[in-house]
Amino acid sequence: MATDTSDQDIGSPKAESASGSVVISVDAMGGDRGPSVVVEGCAAALAEIPNLSILLHGDEAALRPLIARLPAVAGRLTLCPAEAVVSMNDKPSHVMRHGKNTSMWSAIAAVKDQRAHAAVSCGNTGALMAVSMLQLRRMPGVNRPAIACLWPSRGRHGFNTMLDVGADIKAEAEDLLAYAIMGATYFRNDFDEPRPRVGLLNVGTEEHKGRAEIKAAHELIASHQDTGFYEFVGFVEGVDIPSDKVDVIVTDGFTGNVALKTGEGTARLIGDLLKDALKSGTLAMLGAVLARRALQRLSRRIDPRRVNGGVFLGLNGTVVKSHGSADATGVAAAIRLAAKLAQSGYRGRMAERLVIAAQAAQDASSNGETA
Amino acid sequence: MATDTSDQDIGSPKAESASGSVVISVDAMGGDRGPSVVVEGCAAALAEIPNLSILLHGDEAALRPLIARLPAVAGRLTLCPAEAVVSMNDKPSHVMRHGKNTSMWSAIAAVKDQRAHAAVSCGNTGALMAVSMLQLRRMPGVNRPAIACLWPSRGRHGFNTMLDVGADIKAEAEDLLAYAIMGATYFRNDFDEPRPRVGLLNVGTEEHKGRAEIKAAHELIASHQDTGFYEFVGFVEGVDIPSDKVDVIVTDGFTGNVALKTGEGTARLIGDLLKDALKSGTLAMLGAVLARRALQRLSRRIDPRRVNGGVFLGLNGTVVKSHGSADATGVAAAIRLAAKLAQSGYRGRMAERLVIAAQAAQDASSNGETA
Repeated sequence: MATDTSDQDIGSPKAESASGSVVISVDAMGGDRGPSVVVEGCAAALAEIPNLSILLHGDEAALRPLIARLPAVAGRLTLCPAEAVVSMNDKPSHVMRHGKNTSMWSAIAAVKDQRAHAAVSCGNTGALMAVSMLQLRRMPGVNRPAIACLWPSRGRHGFNTMLDVGADIKAEAEDLLAYAIMGATYFRNDFDEPRPRVGLLNVGTEEHKGRAEIKAAHELIASHQDTGFYEFVGFVEGVDIPSDKVDVIVTDGFTGNVALKTGEGTARLIGDLLKDALKSGTLAMLGAVLARRALQRLSRRIDPRRVNGGVFLGLNGTVVKSHGSADATGVAAAIRLAAKLAQSGYRGRMAERLVIAAQAAQDASSNGETA
Repeated sequence: MATDTSDQDIGSPKAESASGSVVISVDAMGGDRGPSVVVEGCAAALAEIPNLSILLHGDEAALRPLIARLPAVAGRLTLCPAEAVVSMNDKPSHVMRHGKNTSMWSAIAAVKDQRAHAAVSCGNTGALMAVSMLQLRRMPGVNRPAIACLWPSRGRHGFNTMLDVGADIKAEAEDLLAYAIMGATYFRNDFDEPRPRVGLLNVGTEEHKGRAEIKAAHELIASHQDTGFYEFVGFVEGVDIPSDKVDVIVTDGFTGNVALKTGEGTARLIGDLLKDALKSGTLAMLGAVLARRALQRLSRRIDPRRVNGGVFLGLNGTVVKSHGSADATGVAAAIRLAAKLAQSGYRGRMAERLVIAAQAAQDASSNGETA
């Protein structure tokens, strides 16, 4: 387990939402659809959550007129001017060195300075993680932070959690253990599930299969079920991600990102084919009209915008990455998620368990019990 | 590029189906549903393909009565007794050492001995690849053989090809180049597409992203477009797998297997939710009745059984891995695919291109042009 990970505890759970109000820092720039949908999303979230305030970071000339159109939320939506924008093609390393004047940097700085309880951005994922790590620092016991997403499922709560879906392109066994602990805490908090079931993604469920770090992670995750407050169900396969066999799916960020986007692509293809099928003839069209409400409910159930927002776990502060192409509904969902997390205090419990696991791994390592 | 890969050319394209008839060697055992569905699948394929004969390998006592019920195909379905069965839990290394008396070994041996043009098995994928590599050997220029699958898509031909979906758990840059060449040849052959578009699966489409071997593969695959007879479209993401941006998706066997099974799981979840939605009320049920034919067409379009069969590419012989849980329709589809491949001569062209690429990579390497 890596040890160079301590750093200060920014925005501690006690500080979060102590006053009963919640402040979310939103990066208005860098999304594929421009700042106007972000401002619309802010307005929707403010209308829905009475104790919410938003700090909006970005280009003053672009944002001022958009905000002026929203007198209803005046006083709860504060402009924080930032002249530069991180583009989707900027390298994270470049943004870390030269990005201090960007809206993304400014949005994370507000969390670091405890002016906001959590941050939301639709921008470049790699840059957002780099800027967040630099400013908020990793929790003790975390070498690689992770991005967790919710996945529509047959499970008890209608959603499973998967992580990492793209913070890093690799993960060692110790990272996968930290993901199990972080994912279980996140899921427990979100769905009030006392003992989430954790599965480790692999190419088969037999114990002899898979890459070396995954076999090592199997041992580690199995041995930390009690300290991590989860039940380990062993290896799971891609087909199990939306199943009711598991609540939290642990994998490296390369595999997780491919799986997430493959699921998205498959859902979109089937949706398109279904629409085509229901337009293919008079009877089909009539059928579609009759079944319209049921089909709309289904469409909402698997709408990726409803669960928009990858949560960065393992940092001393809460950051939600909204989909780059999110519309106002998606942005509002990401802000809602950030506000919920900011008010939950999940990071305090997560931090405790990570430190216990890191300590146990270190003890085992120095006793020569593990590699 | 590895060089320890030559070995004899078994079942050369010229030998394949020279007589106009095609002989497929089928492993009757080891599928999840037992030998009876395999025999049913054989009967369906024989009824459909007039010039097909089948060698059926497996337990004589179990198979004899099943075959006796099929007088219509007598003379074209030959029993090849094999006493042992490879189970789903057997380790490939164990089967390689002790599996000579199994139906799987016997099915591959028939291809090696040129008694059959291609083999089909529903059994343990790892063991099937190990037994196939041991008996048929790799084509020159191939270090890691791959399993290719077809994926329903928006593409010109309704299907894309992805490889590797599970032959190995990793792939180096040179392996990914070989997959590009093999996949392009396979796709061209199957869909009569002169210049298939090849994409390399990654977590983003920007060139600076991804793991080292994937960046190296990007260079290699780009530089072999002419010798490989494909167009390289660069990096693609999970969401592009069923898209019309690409025909052949190249990735390592761990990622490919997870993606394939994630797609399967997502499709199954949406199918179930759709069924539930259409039973959720009287109007929805009536709508479903009216749209029934359109919905059935959609269901067939994305039915995994229709495209059942992962093809092992890079061996001196054709082997099709049918899904372990395939029913008779799925087994028949796998046999049909094997018969089509056996009659196509694709392996001859693939072998030429692989040797050219391997030679070029070796020349470049000895000139110090590549790592």
